Amino acid sequence: MTTQDTVTACLVLIGNEILSGRTKDANLPWLAEALGAAGIRLREARVIPDDPDEIIATVNHCRARYDHVFTTGGIGPTHDDITALCIAKAFGVALERNPDAVGRLERHYNDPSKLNAARLKMAEIPTGATLIDNPVSAAPGFTMENVHVLPGVPKIMQAMAEGLIKKLKGGRVVLSKTLICRTMEGTIAETLGRIQNAHPAVEIGSYPYMSSTNAGVSLVFRCDDAEKLTAAVTAMESELKALEIEYRVE
Amino acid sequence: MTTQDTVTACLVLIGNEILSGRTKDANLPWLAEALGAAGIRLREARVIPDDPDEIIATVNHCRARYDHVFTTGGIGPTHDDITALCIAKAFGVALERNPDAVGRLERHYNDPSKLNAARLKMAEIPTGATLIDNPVSAAPGFTMENVHVLPGVPKIMQAMAEGLIKKLKGGRVVLSKTLICRTMEGTIAETLGRIQNAHPAVEIGSYPYMSSTNAGVSLVFRCDDAEKLTAAVTAMESELKALEIEYRVE
Repeated sequence: MTTQDTVTACLVLIGNEILSGRTKDANLPWLAEALGAAGIRLREARVIPDDPDEIIATVNHCRARYDHVFTTGGIGPTHDDITALCIAKAFGVALERNPDAVGRLERHYNDPSKLNAARLKMAEIPTGATLIDNPVSAAPGFTMENVHVLPGVPKIMQAMAEGLIKKLKGGRVVLSKTLICRTMEGTIAETLGRIQNAHPAVEIGSYPYMSSTNAGVSLVFRCDDAEKLTAAVTAMESELKALEIEYRVE
Repeated sequence: MTTQDTVTACLVLIGNEILSGRTKDANLPWLAEALGAAGIRLREARVIPDDPDEIIATVNHCRARYDHVFTTGGIGPTHDDITALCIAKAFGVALERNPDAVGRLERHYNDPSKLNAARLKMAEIPTGATLIDNPVSAAPGFTMENVHVLPGVPKIMQAMAEGLIKKLKGGRVVLSKTLICRTMEGTIAETLGRIQNAHPAVEIGSYPYMSSTNAGVSLVFRCDDAEKLTAAVTAMESELKALEIEYRVE
């Protein structure tokens, strides 16, 4: 893979409910695709519990290692929503009531009696952070240096991330092409290894699939250079034809 | 939470295809539930790329920190299947052709011409590891000390993990109860915080949900002590009744 113009990201999913298996995360695949399309490569994801020490240590480790860190979860009004406080601690800054955030909540709730102490907690933002717009339910996320703090509810997270990602500078977009083959991995492994060696700039992944009616292998070719990508895919297609293996391109 | 008799685990999902968003992981929630039922608590999960340095560093970090580490992905016959080699390197042992594993593959493939070099790679196991039975497709996983190496294809992973988990010694099982409430988080946040403070042994999570027809909050109570769990749930039910909030128990 070309490493020039590469912009990297790490996703930190904060939430006991994912680690208990109760909630099936939908944010990772969505963010992976949205970031990829914007030229930002998701290099790692971590799921960690609602534990202050874990959150602080993980955020500090990851923000030093990747161009961007995205967190999801833990920015609501309840006692277990501790992400903003932990981010403030990770950066060694205060958590303060942000007037802009308060204004957004006031306009959203309209009725002052509804904007209680718990909801006002959602306006507490680390000093120096920039707010991320929430077009669904007003309570903002925030960006602190290269750390972007988003909620866990997928609909709200997606609406907020769409606005955020547009503002970030991506690198080269990774292109991909998939050959879906009616064969077994073991049958084509040697050939595929040869193609990979001959095309080192292209990352080739081999993913077997099984359903009750169907089995086969998806070969995924990924590269940020269209010509190199096509060369590797074409080479593999020739091999599949020679081996008389049925396939389709996606 | 009681920390006595607590057995912890970390899950390491190995695979570029998850980080690209192409494959939606199904192994995390399944393993989280299966481990939880066996008294093993999933404390962290990481998704990392098919990169030897990342795999080795992550496995070594996590195996020192948790009672068990489970890996999924990267143990097939193709060039991108590098997990076994990386585990051997992480433990500083050799990767060797395991006669028992070869025997299992021979019996499965039956026809010697099918057991080619690529498939024989699946019998290369770190020295000192114990094989994990694969009742679906023969190629075994393995356990090296507290690291359990499983495949990525969910059907095969599940069949293998079921046999493996039965043999592991779990700690106290975490019990859980959910109150699904027709309200907003902000409305009950203060009450909920009070209940949490009064019941520190119980972990209470608040998870808003939204669909096109429905919105509300799921309050999840978790504890390894049935009496303490019931006390906290009952206290919250009284509060919900007093606030005239509709709810149901799950």
